Amino acid sequence: MTRILWINPMGTAEFDEPISRELRSESAAFIDVASFERGPKHLDYNAFEMLVAPTLLSTIRWAEQEGYDAAVVGCFYDPALRAAREIVDDLVITAPAEASLHLAATLGEKISILVGTEKNIPEMHENVVKYGFLNRLASFRPVGIAVNDYQRDPSYTEGRLMEEAQRAIEEDGADVIVLGCTAQFGFYRRAQERLGIPVIDSAVAALLYAEYLTSLRNGQGWRTTKRVGYKGPDLSEMNATIPVTAPVVLLDPRKNAKTNACS
Amino acid sequence: MTRILWINPMGTAEFDEPISRELRSESAAFIDVASFERGPKHLDYNAFEMLVAPTLLSTIRWAEQEGYDAAVVGCFYDPALRAAREIVDDLVITAPAEASLHLAATLGEKISILVGTEKNIPEMHENVVKYGFLNRLASFRPVGIAVNDYQRDPSYTEGRLMEEAQRAIEEDGADVIVLGCTAQFGFYRRAQERLGIPVIDSAVAALLYAEYLTSLRNGQGWRTTKRVGYKGPDLSEMNATIPVTAPVVLLDPRKNAKTNACS
Amino acid sequence: MTRILWINPMGTAEFDEPISRELRSESAAFIDVASFERGPKHLDYNAFEMLVAPTLLSTIRWAEQEGYDAAVVGCFYDPALRAAREIVDDLVITAPAEASLHLAATLGEKISILVGTEKNIPEMHENVVKYGFLNRLASFRPVGIAVNDYQRDPSYTEGRLMEEAQRAIEEDGADVIVLGCTAQFGFYRRAQERLGIPVIDSAVAALLYAEYLTSLRNGQGWRTTKRVGYKGPDLSEMNATIPVTAPVVLLDPRKNAKTNACS
Amino acid sequence: MTRILWINPMGTAEFDEPISRELRSESAAFIDVASFERGPKHLDYNAFEMLVAPTLLSTIRWAEQEGYDAAVVGCFYDPALRAAREIVDDLVITAPAEASLHLAATLGEKISILVGTEKNIPEMHENVVKYGFLNRLASFRPVGIAVNDYQRDPSYTEGRLMEEAQRAIEEDGADVIVLGCTAQFGFYRRAQERLGIPVIDSAVAALLYAEYLTSLRNGQGWRTTKRVGYKGPDLSEMNATIPVTAPVVLLDPRKNAKTNACS
Amino acid sequence: MTRILWINPMGTAEFDEPISRELRSESAAFIDVASFERGPKHLDYNAFEMLVAPTLLSTIRWAEQEGYDAAVVGCFYDPALRAAREIVDDLVITAPAEASLHLAATLGEKISILVGTEKNIPEMHENVVKYGFLNRLASFRPVGIAVNDYQRDPSYTEGRLMEEAQRAIEEDGADVIVLGCTAQFGFYRRAQERLGIPVIDSAVAALLYAEYLTSLRNGQGWRTTKRVGYKGPDLSEMNATIPVTAPVVLLDPRKNAKTNACS
Amino acid sequence: MTRILWINPMGTAEFDEPISRELRSESAAFIDVASFERGPKHLDYNAFEMLVAPTLLSTIRWAEQEGYDAAVVGCFYDPALRAAREIVDDLVITAPAEASLHLAATLGEKISILVGTEKNIPEMHENVVKYGFLNRLASFRPVGIAVNDYQRDPSYTEGRLMEEAQRAIEEDGADVIVLGCTAQFGFYRRAQERLGIPVIDSAVAALLYAEYLTSLRNGQGWRTTKRVGYKGPDLSEMNATIPVTAPVVLLDPRKNAKTNACS
Repeated sequence: MTRILWINPMGTAEFDEPISRELRSESAAFIDVASFERGPKHLDYNAFEMLVAPTLLSTIRWAEQEGYDAAVVGCFYDPALRAAREIVDDLVITAPAEASLHLAATLGEKISILVGTEKNIPEMHENVVKYGFLNRLASFRPVGIAVNDYQRDPSYTEGRLMEEAQRAIEEDGADVIVLGCTAQFGFYRRAQERLGIPVIDSAVAALLYAEYLTSLRNGQGWRTTKRVGYKGPDLSEMNATIPVTAPVVLLDPRKNAKTNACS
Repeated sequence: MTRILWINPMGTAEFDEPISRELRSESAAFIDVASFERGPKHLDYNAFEMLVAPTLLSTIRWAEQEGYDAAVVGCFYDPALRAAREIVDDLVITAPAEASLHLAATLGEKISILVGTEKNIPEMHENVVKYGFLNRLASFRPVGIAVNDYQRDPSYTEGRLMEEAQRAIEEDGADVIVLGCTAQFGFYRRAQERLGIPVIDSAVAALLYAEYLTSLRNGQGWRTTKRVGYKGPDLSEMNATIPVTAPVVLLDPRKNAKTNACS
Repeated sequence: MTRILWINPMGTAEFDEPISRELRSESAAFIDVASFERGPKHLDYNAFEMLVAPTLLSTIRWAEQEGYDAAVVGCFYDPALRAAREIVDDLVITAPAEASLHLAATLGEKISILVGTEKNIPEMHENVVKYGFLNRLASFRPVGIAVNDYQRDPSYTEGRLMEEAQRAIEEDGADVIVLGCTAQFGFYRRAQERLGIPVIDSAVAALLYAEYLTSLRNGQGWRTTKRVGYKGPDLSEMNATIPVTAPVVLLDPRKNAKTNACS
Repeated sequence: MTRILWINPMGTAEFDEPISRELRSESAAFIDVASFERGPKHLDYNAFEMLVAPTLLSTIRWAEQEGYDAAVVGCFYDPALRAAREIVDDLVITAPAEASLHLAATLGEKISILVGTEKNIPEMHENVVKYGFLNRLASFRPVGIAVNDYQRDPSYTEGRLMEEAQRAIEEDGADVIVLGCTAQFGFYRRAQERLGIPVIDSAVAALLYAEYLTSLRNGQGWRTTKRVGYKGPDLSEMNATIPVTAPVVLLDPRKNAKTNACS
Repeated sequence: MTRILWINPMGTAEFDEPISRELRSESAAFIDVASFERGPKHLDYNAFEMLVAPTLLSTIRWAEQEGYDAAVVGCFYDPALRAAREIVDDLVITAPAEASLHLAATLGEKISILVGTEKNIPEMHENVVKYGFLNRLASFRPVGIAVNDYQRDPSYTEGRLMEEAQRAIEEDGADVIVLGCTAQFGFYRRAQERLGIPVIDSAVAALLYAEYLTSLRNGQGWRTTKRVGYKGPDLSEMNATIPVTAPVVLLDPRKNAKTNACS
Repeated sequence: MTRILWINPMGTAEFDEPISRELRSESAAFIDVASFERGPKHLDYNAFEMLVAPTLLSTIRWAEQEGYDAAVVGCFYDPALRAAREIVDDLVITAPAEASLHLAATLGEKISILVGTEKNIPEMHENVVKYGFLNRLASFRPVGIAVNDYQRDPSYTEGRLMEEAQRAIEEDGADVIVLGCTAQFGFYRRAQERLGIPVIDSAVAALLYAEYLTSLRNGQGWRTTKRVGYKGPDLSEMNATIPVTAPVVLLDPRKNAKTNACS
């Protein structure tokens, strides 16, 4: 059974439990959820991505040592994705924007991304360009909700997401919606049912892309290349600079139960 | 258990048995392999893609009626991919270039695609641009082997693939190789072991992408959007124009065996 | 005198007579109009382009054997353009989007394309990118008329075309309009007179581009290259796969009259 | 009969006679050839394009007053093309790079442009980008011949053109060649016969594109838009700034002969 | 002390005095302001850029002979920039669009350019693409004021600039504003104070970029390359074609005063 | 007098003294050089950029509190540039790739970047795309020297830089060279003298761009926008997450001497 470490790359465990419930309801893999003891409570700023990066890398190394199959960096900015790939040997790494944009470009033609605020757009736009999907981008649409407030008043959040998704369809010609923040969890099923087009929860997409990449690694030997851009430091240099440290972890309670099952 | 119809979109069953062995060795899904009674024996020309298109669409409709989860259009030109998505309701559709390029762009930075001859490049280049991966393209490299000759002298084929892959790494800076013809099957494992970077067999990649998309459809309801570009004809118009016809099919012998297993 | 075969690539002769009148009023060439005995009545779906493709190719071969100078594939999606060029030796081939976009980019700076519905946009957008005119695209604007309804109520059609063209000028900065469906014939002259900017009927543009390319072929020997992307099957392979079959043809009555004239 | 003014935009009449012979051998139109009394003897530098621009514009205005149908700015940099279009009312204007690149992109997939020296490339590359054909560009290849030396030793010139064209085909994958200097006249027919792919003489292409655009203007009313980018000064402002002045003109001797003919 | 020649490339000295005051209030360099005795009074048309080009080049050569450090071509179309760089040996050359766009792309993420009328956009858009900043462009916004009217009613001009800048921020997501006409001088300080984001006066930006480039030339030897695209004619060819002629010049009165100072 | 903090973003002071000498020889500004007490000794890996990011941000905040005018992040990957801009109020921030590419695109047409190894290219290529200069890129050329070895054997380093620069000019058409690693200091003057084209030392370019941006901030109020992408956390959030901490600093000895001078 695939073992995945979902990393909430923030100095708060507040979202670990709700997102673990959400993710485990979407997958049969063992999903442990990690967060950090210290650091910012959200990553709305690129500066905060930078602050958590060392802890994130230490967690990545820990995950590889612990024998996880994959680790997901749980933020739609895809923080430190290149760095994470440099320092692993065999661990699968992915992140929400990468996973959901590749998927959206397969399912539809014109992608609209719902984001928190206008502030989020330039860095995400850079990522859309970097991943190659600029010609598929219908629009970014801010919903005007701060990252830590999505779950405060779910019905308000749902209303705003629906409003902007509708506008994306009618005004921007979107035929697939991406929820451009991992904190927008819990909304996609009802939204897609009502809108009649795919609504991609980027957290769920990243989890399932990690499982897919894991199965390709195990079955076909297709893993992150270790040449050129993803070439990383050798072990001694890595040990000298990136300590292996355990994050706060919420273990998947299903693990014992499952291991007896036929699989 | 996922049921996939692999379509060799050609008027020959010659490759059905070897590719079925290859594919079934890579996946536990039930994989039936279809080909057509009539039509060209290869798709090296865009004209031949056009010739097989109606039969291909009839096969796609048949696959959906038969209850397959997914159908793969087995040619690296990804023939009739948009058309196929228009006419299905729920069937997953994918194809080798789409599947392997999305994967290659996740695993590496610079992709080199090994093709048969220079003739193949312009249409494939158009697809690379269309899918968004131009900035990731290191090179196309022709191996100078006709599509139906790859399996004639496997050791010659392997030699040529290795030669061009080596050049792609050294001269073009490639860190991931894509085998840009589904007839280049049976070579990727040894090649990637010797080269030390991922070598993506585009047929295998398409099969496994189909399984992945199927699991997302079943689990998350993420399916091809039916709006905008993939909006298709209504049922009566479809029935009037696209007959549902069975192709030549090579059934997966594992099916009965498996259905008794715990799954 | 140049002999052109205009192909309405559909299983209906309904438009042959009106479009033949329209086209012959625009050109002194001999213009025969072909359609197919069977097949969909319109090509609004990419799937329908695929359905007619084999008949289209057989018609192309027939046209070359009959000694036509050029054949025009009469649909703004430019269906099977690459395939058609592969299978001819000397016959000139063109299509409406190619012809009208090259022209529009010469006459103006910002092109707005009036299309039937939102459904048409993604495939046409792909073509705009493929032909190289993305930086010249001001907008696509759907008029909300189905392809077979343009000629039902011409004054309504004209009203809608004028409305969207006006918006394209005022809101999108367009300085040249392309009628992005060959069924929008009969409107361009009045529209351009009233709007004061070029309004390109894409059917007429394709016809005249075919004549131009023919004159270059005859005079300068400039013809479709037969290398690389347009390299096609050899004759025996072609004969084995693409029968030469006559379409339904509406002959140009001017032919006999003209042949006696001084030319 | 169409009347075209070919403008050698240089202060020398040295090339008027040879190019007039070349052009008249390619077209039945009346072709007068103009050059300037003063100014640089070639336009290898952008500075020299700027120097001749006022005289060029005065010549354009003169051409319109004299009733020419079209004027061609005879240099592959396409100097002052936007300016020329601003100041005319009805006169067709085109230039070699525009004309030959649109044509090359229709006839082939990958264009190689043979230029004089490396110096020419950046400005021409800008034009390739501006016209939209970057994805079609196989290569620029300098032949190492100064612009005024192409006709000195024709067999040497022919040798160099053939050499670089061969390399473009073999090393760059080109399937269409553009002669990227109007002074490379007289070579294209033999070159294309020997190479087996289209070799576009950009001077001839511009002449014939001018005839084509003229016929569209006369027949369909499709002319340079006078809005947005091509909007020009009003007549009084134009008269105050751009004198109408006759260039040195070499008249087409065929004019009288032809006017009696049946046409 | 750096000596800069600001060139108002027009046949009027009307703006020399006001712009000299404006520029001198922004810089301690010696700034002489030149204009031409003849020629159009504004450069709203590309044709007018062409008309002034020879005089501009003669002025550039004069500036180099007079020992200026830098010359600025004072129009947001950046007329004749490549030509000017070809003909100088050591003189620094820059222009408003180049200078302000490089700066804007450093200070912000999304640039909105306020222009006079819709007419200005296509040529400026070409320049944005040429300079590489298309992905940073939020919008062009015309204020509807003719180039020679900006200073007529400054409070009206200011109102219009503020209106469109506000819309650029709110509707287009701009976070930096560029005043896309050198005649929009005198407004940027109040505008940026009120808007709270950088408002770049493109004339001032060009002046200061010229000083910066001069200091790099003097200190580091970094000067315009004289190879490839900026390679120019040799001296004898230049003397034969581009006379060195003095423009109308408004000298900087600060020069004598300053030369006694400690610097 | 401008006060600049040059940050060697690494856990070694080894390069502080040599680079301070180099930088101070290029500028009259006060230049203090900082490095970190801990952390990797080079930033060849993206992972190492991430490791130093928090210390870098703390240093940036310290620099603003200490009253520096500008801080330069001294690595050609431009690490944490967006983050640094988010957290400052008024401090100017720049970095070598940004500074040298903007400059190179002004001085020349085709830029070749000399890098250490092939490993460096993908991330730097992403930056070239992000900054907008892809169309200006002639090539990346690795010299095969590890980042900490450039100063070990300067004559070998110089030899390799010259070799690859020569190839860039002859084979890639480069007309300006960028030294794509700040550790390649001390070589540019001799190289550019011998090559005859600009050779931009990216460290020096960043220093001088910082001075230029400072003078614009002071004189014109043009500073990093604090809206949209560069909007940062408020002060209390910043204080809670990013401690203000002093780096290791090598002070500029010229400071006392200079302050008595006339300036």
